[in-house]
This record gives sequence, structure tokens and C-alpha cells, in this order.
Amino acid sequence: MFHEKAIMPKGYTCASINCGLKKDGAEDLSVIYSEKTASAAAVFTKNQVPGAPVIVGREIIAKGKLQALVINSKVSNVGTGEQGVQNARRMGAAVAKEFGCSADEVLMSSTGVIAVQLPIEKVEAGVVGIKDKMNNDPLVAAKGIMTTDTHPKAYSVNVGDAVITLIAKGSGMIEPNMATMLAYCLTDADIEPQVLDQMLRKAVNKSFNMLSIDTDTSTSDTVVIMANGLAGKVDESAFQEALDQLSIKMTETMARDGEGATKLIRTEITGAVNYDEARVYAKSMINSPLIKTMAFGADPNIGRILMALGKCFENTFDLDKLTLSINDTLIYKDAGKVDYDEPELRKTISGDPVVFQIDLGLGDGSATTYGCDLTHGYVDENAAYYSS
Amino acid sequence: MFHEKAIMPKGYTCASINCGLKKDGAEDLSVIYSEKTASAAAVFTKNQVPGAPVIVGREIIAKGKLQALVINSKVSNVGTGEQGVQNARRMGAAVAKEFGCSADEVLMSSTGVIAVQLPIEKVEAGVVGIKDKMNNDPLVAAKGIMTTDTHPKAYSVNVGDAVITLIAKGSGMIEPNMATMLAYCLTDADIEPQVLDQMLRKAVNKSFNMLSIDTDTSTSDTVVIMANGLAGKVDESAFQEALDQLSIKMTETMARDGEGATKLIRTEITGAVNYDEARVYAKSMINSPLIKTMAFGADPNIGRILMALGKCFENTFDLDKLTLSINDTLIYKDAGKVDYDEPELRKTISGDPVVFQIDLGLGDGSATTYGCDLTHGYVDENAAYYSS
Repeated sequence: MFHEKAIMPKGYTCASINCGLKKDGAEDLSVIYSEKTASAAAVFTKNQVPGAPVIVGREIIAKGKLQALVINSKVSNVGTGEQGVQNARRMGAAVAKEFGCSADEVLMSSTGVIAVQLPIEKVEAGVVGIKDKMNNDPLVAAKGIMTTDTHPKAYSVNVGDAVITLIAKGSGMIEPNMATMLAYCLTDADIEPQVLDQMLRKAVNKSFNMLSIDTDTSTSDTVVIMANGLAGKVDESAFQEALDQLSIKMTETMARDGEGATKLIRTEITGAVNYDEARVYAKSMINSPLIKTMAFGADPNIGRILMALGKCFENTFDLDKLTLSINDTLIYKDAGKVDYDEPELRKTISGDPVVFQIDLGLGDGSATTYGCDLTHGYVDENAAYYSS
Repeated sequence: MFHEKAIMPKGYTCASINCGLKKDGAEDLSVIYSEKTASAAAVFTKNQVPGAPVIVGREIIAKGKLQALVINSKVSNVGTGEQGVQNARRMGAAVAKEFGCSADEVLMSSTGVIAVQLPIEKVEAGVVGIKDKMNNDPLVAAKGIMTTDTHPKAYSVNVGDAVITLIAKGSGMIEPNMATMLAYCLTDADIEPQVLDQMLRKAVNKSFNMLSIDTDTSTSDTVVIMANGLAGKVDESAFQEALDQLSIKMTETMARDGEGATKLIRTEITGAVNYDEARVYAKSMINSPLIKTMAFGADPNIGRILMALGKCFENTFDLDKLTLSINDTLIYKDAGKVDYDEPELRKTISGDPVVFQIDLGLGDGSATTYGCDLTHGYVDENAAYYSS
């Protein structure tokens, strides 16, 4: 259902440049612009130390309208006090001036190091003249927002005549409630802000909020959707379905590109007494270091799965009704290990993805979570990350 | 306050042998025996898939009396159904027969691989004649219960004429509510079972339940205390204090010897609105992979601390009142970074321990948690662990 290569919906352009934040000359500043003011909605981190752009962004999104997005990487503008808030506003104002639009309709994001002031003069200087660099490739915008991502991320899907394009970054400090995860969804469909907001929340709860790279919830997580209406009305349920699938696709891509990750892990819980318990089980699995290292080691360890389920102390559980499969190979049933072709299973889980299929046999609750393996690479990246 | 070398309290002896579970000939079976039936209490894992020894152990400890302990490593006898329960009982019965005591007063534990039946014949054969191998060194018992521990663990402390000795193992699948953590506390003090039970729970809540190696809660965690009374009555508050300190000392030792760990991390939360919130903050810090890798990398990263505190969504928080220190160096105050000698701080946190001192400035709630850094060693051990 996805385009082979992401495209921009009607009326949107983007650019990314190096404005001097990243010393190696890599892109560190992206702008996305819609020729027509768009309906808009956003979801932000629940972290109690939100970044300045999140504080200002909540204010801006309240009106449900956006015309431009500006995002820098390298410095997250978090824990930077009143000066940080002023700098976030200056970032939006610079873009408004460049494009001749209202500063009330420019949402800004920042990602990178925490507790360092944003060199706002560099950002402002970088924005001057960026209007002449705008083009139609979503991957260009995706490049400027990367931190530890190994590749830029953008996908597109059609809903009738409209296109939805999702541009995002991962890859560490990522759990529920958003993550150092920035995702920008652009569409030319015509949808009211309130409806857009509900649709976004539904999609996010099935996708980004079910992602965990490392249980750590960033202070900057942001998902924004803009709908400029240039392609007219669309069927709402088809749009929701497309948005859900696009968000899940991006979630899987982020998981696979998690810090140090070599593969995607998906945990599919079914048969829980209700959705809430299914979600707790699915999260316990995806967050367990012993599950993550076993996926890295390609080791079908039943004991660790029992442990990860059993440590959900408040949930309903019955060992006798439990059925476990990994990558469609049944390994545990009727309270006992099943005979299976172990070398064959080891072979499939040495690849990507590793999918845990867990049926609790108790009810209709189901939930799926997305994550990645825990490797030396994660330790390397995070023991050495620039901090001050 | 601790003895330089652990000693046995009056009336206790122990032995450990290889009964054939570990192929390399290392000790895999320990017995601890009291010449007089002791008052006893125990705390077990809250994991919903408890091991067979935990199921049987809960039954045995209900009477508050024990004369012997038998523990094997290598196979945990978890997820082994009715046969597992029978094997656990046979393990206790074998010791009762060897020592001529009641099987109702022998508590058994197992640690190691999950979902594999215990080779009970090897255990039974190993117990025969073990009576002649009993000696007075607690480290002997500690050896037979090791799995991924790098050294055996035992400490002793005096309370008046009585001695308390704590023998334990770590080192992975360890979070709250006990862990693949087995701890046996022996004393010759004279204390009633009910009092002993309360004292044990108090000590455990301050120590083992504040330990997290990897957030994963084992199916076998057990802490047992025996008091055979041979040294007579003791001052109860002195005993509680000694038991607390002994448990904290062992908790720190376990953390330091966590799988792959190079150092102890301690998080001291003060000034929270109450104990519950302090505990949530302290746990969030100790469980954060980004905090753990930063300790490994000796990197004083303020942003990660703000993130780990901020992700406690339900807690009360005020950035303006927050004070952060690491190893007694003040790094953050009045919502801003403090100037400090960074090379010097990096030097101290490249050593062991790394202590995070976090004052929330809101009230009297305090809590301390214990953990370790996240290293390549953890990934190595757990990507390769024998599973089937």
C-alpha cells in the first residue's frame, strides 16, 4: 500500500541545510512549508521536563492551524529555562519572516543534547534564503532532523486522490508517550482540526505509543499532522486506516533503526482478558533486557518469556492456557514445551524480524508492541554520547 | 560493623558439592543445617510463574520453622508443572533423610535455566553422605548457589552475643520483588517467627527490593531467615538495624556483581513529597538504560537525569527546586547547570561507585535504590546464555 518512494502531497515543499550546529557539516535544520494554511493537530511528550519547543508548541497547536514546521537537530533546547522558550519563539519567527506567514502558524521542534542553550543566531542566519532551496523530496526534510538515526525516514500512501506522507526520526530515549521521536505527517486531504486531532491520537496509540527502544521517554517527542485540503475531502475511515498503517510502518522502521539495533522485535499479545492487560504484557516483553538480548543472540528461551509475562503482577494469568510461538513456530502449550525444530527456529530468529506470538487464552484483549534487540552497539552509542 | 570474613552463627554448618548438574565440575548443590530447629521467615518472588521450590516453599514456611536449606544451581525448576513440584519435595525429603530431621522443616531453592526438568536423581544421589562434609565457612554454601555471579557472597555482623550471617547470590533477571536472587540469613539469636517475619520484610523493603540489575523479575527469588536461638535473646531494634545494614551491604555487593557490571550505581532521592514518589524516582533512575550507560561511560549527563525524573509522569516535580549532585559534586541547581570541575567529576565517576544525589526540594520523602552500569558484558552474557 505504500509508495515505493515517498512523495510530497500537493502544496508542500521542504528543505534542509547545515546551519552550523553539527560540526561535520551534516544537515541540522529542516523546514517544511505548505502553500496554504493547513488544519493541524499534534501530540507531545508526557515527560515532566518538556523541551522549550514543546512548551511553545502546545500553545501554537491549540488553534489547530499550521503553515510551516522548523526543526533542528544537535541541540534539543530542553532544560534551558526562559531563554530557551524565547529561542524557540525566535526560531518560529525567523521562518514566518522568511516565508511571509504568521508566526502563530509555525511549529518548531528541536532534538539533540539536553541542558544546552540553542545557538539561535546560527538558526536564524540559516533560515535566511532557505525559501529558494525548497523542493519536493520528503527525504530531504528527514535528513535534517536525524540524530543517531542511520538513515532518513519517510513514507507515503494514497487515500483516494489525497496523499499522506510521514517524515520521522528515531532512535534512542524512546518509550511510550512519544520518544526522542519526531514525526511529521503531511496530507493534502481536507479535514477539520478536531477530526484530525482524534485521528492522530487513534493512530499514535496503535503505533508510536507502542514503540520502545529503551524504556526512556524523551523530553522532546512530537508528532504533528497537517492537512492543507488541496486534494479535497476523503473518506474518513479510509483515511484513518491509511494513517494507522503509515504510523505502524514508521514505528517498525524506527524500531529496526533503534540505537545499536540489528532487528525489529514485535510482540503480538492475544487472548488477554482486556486491552489494558494485553498492553501491559506486550510492553513487559518489549522492554525486557533479557528478551532483547535473546533476540540479539537468536536464542528461543522459553524461560525468559514466562518471566516477562509473569512479572506483570497485577494481570490475570493462567499457565495452562498459555500458547507461545516465535516467528509462527509453536514452542509452548498446555503448560509444557512443545517439540519443534530448534535449529530451524534459531535460523529464522537470527534474521529480522523476531515476532513473539503470545495467546493467553483468557479473553479478547489484544495489543502489539514494537521494539528492537539490545546489542553492543547500544552500549557503545550511549556510553560515548556527547553530553555537555 | 561487618566481620572481615563471614563466620557461621552458633549451631549452623554447611556444605556444597558438584552433583552433576554443572558439567564443568563446579559446585551446584549446597546444604545449610542448624543443629536446632530455628524460627524462620521468608519472602518470595511476586512473579506469576513462580518456580516449584517457591510453590512448595510458601507451604513450608507457613509454620515458621526450619532446620535445613537445600539449594541447587544450573536448573531453576520453573515452568515444570506437577513433576517439578514433586521433584522439589523429593529434594527436601532427601535432605531430611540424610540429617534425620523433618521434611516439613527443609526449605529448597533452585536457580538456573527455566522450563527444564530438574535431574532429581542426581540431586538425591548428591545429598547422600553430605552430612560428613559439613563445615563452618559460609562461603562454602555461597559457592554452590552461584550462577553468573563472579564470586561467592557472605557477610556477618554481631548483635550483642548473636551473629547474623547473610549468604546470597545475584546477578541477572533482577528487579524489585526479589530477583534471581537467593539470600539466606542465619542467626543464633532467639526470635519468634512472627517477629522475624516482620523484621525480614522491613529489611528487604530497604535493600533487596530496591535493587535492580536489569528490571527483569525472576521466577525464583527467595530470601529466608533462620534464628536457632543458641545465642539467646537480643535487643530487637539493634537486631533490626544490623539486619538492615547487612541486607543493604549484600544488595550493594549484588549490584556491583550484576551481569557485566563494572560498578555500583546508587540513587539517593531526598525531598520528594512522600516515600512512594521518592521510590518511583529512585527506581526510574536505576532502571534507565541511558543512566546505566552513562555511568559505564563516566559521562556526567544532566539531560539524561532530567529525562529519567521527568518520565515519572504521575509524580510531583518542580524544576526550579531540583538539586542534582553526582558523587558529592553539585551539577544542577536553580533550573540551571552549575559550574563545576568537569574533568575531576569524570575521574570520580569513572571509578566505583557512581552515586546520584537528587534533592527534589518538595518534602520529606526519601528512598535509595541500588543498581549497576549497562555494559557489553551484559549483552555478551545474555545473548549467549544456554536456553534449552
